[in-house]
Amino acid sequence: MLAEKMIALGTERSVIRELFDYGKGRAAVVGAENVYDFSIGNPSVPAPPSVNETIRRLIDEIDPVTLHGYTSAAGDAGAKAALTASINRRFGTNLSPDGLYLTMGAAMSLTCCFHGLCCPEDEFIVPAPYFPEYKVFIESAHGKMVVIPPDTEHFQLDLAAMERAINPHTKAVLINSPNNPSGAVYSEKTIQALADLLETKSAEYGHPIYIISDEPYREIVYDGVQVPYIPKYYNNTLVCYSFSKCLSIPGERIGYVAVHETVEDWQRVFAAIAGAGRALGCVNAPSLFQLVVAACADDTADLSVYTENRRLLVDGLRALGYSCVEPGGTFYLFPQSLEPDDAAFSLRARDDFDLLIVPGSGFGCPGHVRISYCVPTQRIQRALPIFGRLAESYRKK
Amino acid sequence: MLAEKMIALGTERSVIRELFDYGKGRAAVVGAENVYDFSIGNPSVPAPPSVNETIRRLIDEIDPVTLHGYTSAAGDAGAKAALTASINRRFGTNLSPDGLYLTMGAAMSLTCCFHGLCCPEDEFIVPAPYFPEYKVFIESAHGKMVVIPPDTEHFQLDLAAMERAINPHTKAVLINSPNNPSGAVYSEKTIQALADLLETKSAEYGHPIYIISDEPYREIVYDGVQVPYIPKYYNNTLVCYSFSKCLSIPGERIGYVAVHETVEDWQRVFAAIAGAGRALGCVNAPSLFQLVVAACADDTADLSVYTENRRLLVDGLRALGYSCVEPGGTFYLFPQSLEPDDAAFSLRARDDFDLLIVPGSGFGCPGHVRISYCVPTQRIQRALPIFGRLAESYRKK
Repeated sequence: MLAEKMIALGTERSVIRELFDYGKGRAAVVGAENVYDFSIGNPSVPAPPSVNETIRRLIDEIDPVTLHGYTSAAGDAGAKAALTASINRRFGTNLSPDGLYLTMGAAMSLTCCFHGLCCPEDEFIVPAPYFPEYKVFIESAHGKMVVIPPDTEHFQLDLAAMERAINPHTKAVLINSPNNPSGAVYSEKTIQALADLLETKSAEYGHPIYIISDEPYREIVYDGVQVPYIPKYYNNTLVCYSFSKCLSIPGERIGYVAVHETVEDWQRVFAAIAGAGRALGCVNAPSLFQLVVAACADDTADLSVYTENRRLLVDGLRALGYSCVEPGGTFYLFPQSLEPDDAAFSLRARDDFDLLIVPGSGFGCPGHVRISYCVPTQRIQRALPIFGRLAESYRKK
Repeated sequence: MLAEKMIALGTERSVIRELFDYGKGRAAVVGAENVYDFSIGNPSVPAPPSVNETIRRLIDEIDPVTLHGYTSAAGDAGAKAALTASINRRFGTNLSPDGLYLTMGAAMSLTCCFHGLCCPEDEFIVPAPYFPEYKVFIESAHGKMVVIPPDTEHFQLDLAAMERAINPHTKAVLINSPNNPSGAVYSEKTIQALADLLETKSAEYGHPIYIISDEPYREIVYDGVQVPYIPKYYNNTLVCYSFSKCLSIPGERIGYVAVHETVEDWQRVFAAIAGAGRALGCVNAPSLFQLVVAACADDTADLSVYTENRRLLVDGLRALGYSCVEPGGTFYLFPQSLEPDDAAFSLRARDDFDLLIVPGSGFGCPGHVRISYCVPTQRIQRALPIFGRLAESYRKK
């Protein structure tokens, strides 16, 4: 007898990973230039030079016993002070270093929040489309995930559906803006309406309903789009951040949970998150990279490639007859599939055209497909005629 | 309502951490040279030069998109191949890279094992003395920790007590050799007897009873002591390792779980561990340090300071009338307290002599205190007369 649920999690392949591996196999057969892989959300631009420069400097300057040694569980005091200062400067907030808990990336930020908050029968509301691992994380904390159907017109929030879903068991609403997979950035109006709703409902039920804001794409936005910083709109917000995407260092596993002093009983909430981290085996976030991100907190990788890719793809696909909401951020586009069955559509794209795009059903949004454009621009240029042939194949039918 | 257990975990201070912070406070009052801090198990020798040299080389040679990018969940294929080869060369085993799961250090190796194995009502047997966090990790996976009283004569295993504790709910026995806090290394005879017992009991109950072997101190041994590699003695062994202590990089959080092919249904066991890692939010072990430890797998920090410290401390304390079992490994000594109440003894040492030593009760072994000798040798030289005055204070009484 083993934990069968864990075996299933360790055995099942994610659709995305499977597509990605399929592509590598096909590349060996038909040549890499003839496979159009848009499956995976791996940053394609290098980290800013400051990352490796900082690593070199730290190695030269800091005693290795300190540099590679344990830090406090919540993170090195200097790193926390620098990161807090950066957040407060950028967002006009008053986050205390005592409210910042450094983690091994956004996934761990989320599991620490779920394990720290979740009590028996608690529910977590997740608006579709959503990152599929959310379900795994919530259920590992013995919480129940409640899905809100997507607003496929603008990929904002369906607040009427949200209101119907909230009940006395609702512990938190998990939002992800800029959104994977839709690329949508929730507008200030959306956030304000969500905040109003949750304030009303919290008062009605006599306990806070938290917003857990998963925002690894916060800095990847286009055309001057503003990403509202949620704690400014809603007091009981827990910010889960990762440096993976903005600094192009997803393998290094470094992020944080920010618990602002506006959170009711913020010190107890912080203790619950830190306690969960301890129980899960997070001794501290990787020590060298705590100092690296502290030094590079205001940098980002060069995101101009994503800007170019997005323009090319949105305009190109629309010209070919595809329908999509223009993404405000991330490096994902989420057009409608050309038949209602997105899995069948994705399969045709793969088998007949070596075009690898991810069905939207796994994100809780059937009838759509995710195209990751964190790829070389040339791949998009070469792929557009293939997207054209794919569309053509439906017209012939 | 928050998860009260997590709040308690996030709020309560460990006795060790509290002593350590007390020492820093006292140092400001009486001067650092007058505080004799032996509280914390933080390696005091730097990482071998190969660690920083490898970091420099990797930064120079490898494209940052790859170097800092996602790896497979179980780890980079090249790193896994190198680490597996090192294990097989050193221990004469046949570990497959498919059985190696890289983790964020030994704590996470353990939580992945507990969450992967644990089914309702499962029990995990832990012989005292033991690392206090084991209880936190086991209970976070909803397992029950069953403690075996210590063999205070040799700090080997009390196998008769072990046999009495095993029952149909026993999922695993957790051992830690070289042991924190006793420094004991379980002999080949002890391991063989444990293996025989567990084989008999596994057959009797019709399911495997695993050994989970937590061995971060495997390379820190003295006088040519051999540490038996448990999978060679018992098939159903899961090896949890960390590079924290041997490479003096505890802050970087890198280790592994090794599931040898001798483990019954090893692929399912591996899947359960990997599934647990996924559920807990471990996307992959830190990517740069995966390659660093792969390159430095056969190195250790310069352990000669620990050798010298151990000799000085064992001989010095014995000459003063203290009674202790000579440690075969680690950087801990675990002498008897000079009164039965180890907490009172530790408090007297602290308050009257500024001597910071950790009561054994927290390790499940009253009547003893832990002395961490990962400290500058001078501190031991200066502390021995103080230990003498502490002993004297009991003779006067």
